[in-house]
Amino acid sequence: MAPFDLETLDRLMAEAGLDLLLATSRHNVRYLTGGYYLPTFKRLEPIGLSQYMPVVGIPRGRPDQAFYVGVSVPDVDEVQALEAFGPMWVENRHWVHELRGRVAGAVAEAAAGVVRKLGLAGARIGIERPFLPVEAFEVLRRELPEATFAEATDLLAKLRAVKSPREVDLLRQVHERAAEAIYATLKAGKPGETSRQVEARLELEMTGRGLHRIFTFAGIGPSFNRFPSDRTWDPGRIINVDTVAELEGYLSDLSRMASMGEAPSLALELFEGCLEVQRRVRDAIGPGVPCRDIHRLGWESIRGNRWGELGNFIAHGLGLVSNELPVFNAETDSVLEPGMVISIEAEYRHPEVGHVKLEDTVVVTSGGCEGLGDFGRDWYTVPL
Amino acid sequence: MAPFDLETLDRLMAEAGLDLLLATSRHNVRYLTGGYYLPTFKRLEPIGLSQYMPVVGIPRGRPDQAFYVGVSVPDVDEVQALEAFGPMWVENRHWVHELRGRVAGAVAEAAAGVVRKLGLAGARIGIERPFLPVEAFEVLRRELPEATFAEATDLLAKLRAVKSPREVDLLRQVHERAAEAIYATLKAGKPGETSRQVEARLELEMTGRGLHRIFTFAGIGPSFNRFPSDRTWDPGRIINVDTVAELEGYLSDLSRMASMGEAPSLALELFEGCLEVQRRVRDAIGPGVPCRDIHRLGWESIRGNRWGELGNFIAHGLGLVSNELPVFNAETDSVLEPGMVISIEAEYRHPEVGHVKLEDTVVVTSGGCEGLGDFGRDWYTVPL
Repeated sequence: MAPFDLETLDRLMAEAGLDLLLATSRHNVRYLTGGYYLPTFKRLEPIGLSQYMPVVGIPRGRPDQAFYVGVSVPDVDEVQALEAFGPMWVENRHWVHELRGRVAGAVAEAAAGVVRKLGLAGARIGIERPFLPVEAFEVLRRELPEATFAEATDLLAKLRAVKSPREVDLLRQVHERAAEAIYATLKAGKPGETSRQVEARLELEMTGRGLHRIFTFAGIGPSFNRFPSDRTWDPGRIINVDTVAELEGYLSDLSRMASMGEAPSLALELFEGCLEVQRRVRDAIGPGVPCRDIHRLGWESIRGNRWGELGNFIAHGLGLVSNELPVFNAETDSVLEPGMVISIEAEYRHPEVGHVKLEDTVVVTSGGCEGLGDFGRDWYTVPL
Repeated sequence: MAPFDLETLDRLMAEAGLDLLLATSRHNVRYLTGGYYLPTFKRLEPIGLSQYMPVVGIPRGRPDQAFYVGVSVPDVDEVQALEAFGPMWVENRHWVHELRGRVAGAVAEAAAGVVRKLGLAGARIGIERPFLPVEAFEVLRRELPEATFAEATDLLAKLRAVKSPREVDLLRQVHERAAEAIYATLKAGKPGETSRQVEARLELEMTGRGLHRIFTFAGIGPSFNRFPSDRTWDPGRIINVDTVAELEGYLSDLSRMASMGEAPSLALELFEGCLEVQRRVRDAIGPGVPCRDIHRLGWESIRGNRWGELGNFIAHGLGLVSNELPVFNAETDSVLEPGMVISIEAEYRHPEVGHVKLEDTVVVTSGGCEGLGDFGRDWYTVPL
């Protein structure tokens, strides 16, 4: 059974006038297959002169004709990888028997062959323009001269916006483990260590919890530079650890605060402002609430204290992609639905103390919302 | 100063008839900048509806006009990232002030603007077709209608084939640390653990050594399935740990063997065959040696025992890309040069014991070659 809502996909494809969807990005292949991606290339882009690029094809209204094109060579055999993965709903599978040449083009050529066999050579085909490499697109156009190609990125983003219980569970797990990893990292803080050392410790804490660290900002005040460097975490300095981790493709997005020894009272005041923003925004979140109302409320709350001009508010959807749907701004017509996952960022940048930021993630529930990974939200003070 | 040989680049561009190079892939941006890549996106592909995609542009014969286009927004500011990175030779830098919209297209548009200002609107421009997304290419064609576009992937691969001392040092480090991590992982082996557990321990050992695990095959015999799974490492079973790790973009590629308790004598015999192949191939490697001779010798050596028909030999270049130049096959005219880095794979798949494989990496030196990460090459027996 498909791991996403087939009726929604059909409706979105009809609205976009698409006969066939060809997904090729890591995140959308993973989404459409229900979590599968060839492990060898989860973290690797190039090989030889090209890159590994699988294809998931879904004809509108015909999920029984959905197909997958991957690679089968002795050393990296997707047939074996799928065996280790377990059942996958797309049973119409095709293999390209090479990996070191122009693989993206070869996979595209095999996919075009399947499309022709399905009688879809003249179809209107949805592709992912921001991800599909030119090498593959040129082959598709050459092999399917009667087809027309349209953008399917927005459609796929819409399809992903409401998470399934399995997805919410993975997002909860990745946030809970990431929150614990950040806490353990801050707790082991030592005066004079560099932000690079903090980053390395966080990576180890995440790895030990089965997570893949994607990136870490570790901004030591009063500098606003958030990139790990040789800057030292000296007594009296605050640190903002803002980090993304991954579990089976799903991303966490959390920001936590600490100080080496007692925090400047100004920093704590700014942090209290962040907490207040989070409280007010969470209280307002629930099914049926317009996203622009959340955006307005977030900014009102940020501006609602004496440091308002130094503040910033961002809310964004989160899942296999960072900053995915729903979008929060003054113009959007989007409305919250149960199962949407939202990362809420409240921050102040003050030149005397640095970057103060609290970021948390919630899932919209039938009655409001529920925090994912709320552990360790308090300001942490490293004892000196 | 450019971190690569500008004369070689000029020559390769002249041969390919290129006036301008536009590199956009992670590995080539990293190569051409001397190691820089925005940390936030080293391990992250999508954001919002597109992806972060920087551009490095180098006009032929005018390295002084080389330019970089990246992103500068408050939360992810490449100006700050470059400050944390240190000096970078390309000083003509341009910033796109958005990250959540159609970023690849926006960066391409800014790059096209720089190209026009340099008077290169009608140039023949080298791009990376296997990596450049359609979204960016369509913008380049629209904004530079008089330009022609050609493939630069091969050219960049040739430029990278001979490593600088800095690159050899990074490749040595990543191999040494990976070899230690594999050894520590095997040494901690426990009867009945799954190959997924072996993989998780290896990831932790790599992370603790500052490496980023890219992928792991952990094939427990006599199965040939190499993908980590719930298969258990029981007494008498062999394991092949074949893994790629990364340090500052540079890849290790090593394969090691162990058994839970005493190894079947057949497995040890096959392993001795792998060692013999490695010995003979290493003895032959040196400057001026044709790559096809190495290929022939490797296969002769693999075939030179009673299990020859079950064997496989692969040699490939290694650096920022796996399976990069030089290429080893029966047809190639390539000749080894000092500074080339080669991964040598010798393996036998026997249905009674499983996959036996030894893979090591060497750098070609003036006098022959030198192993990178030769630690732990012996068969490891977990005491029961």
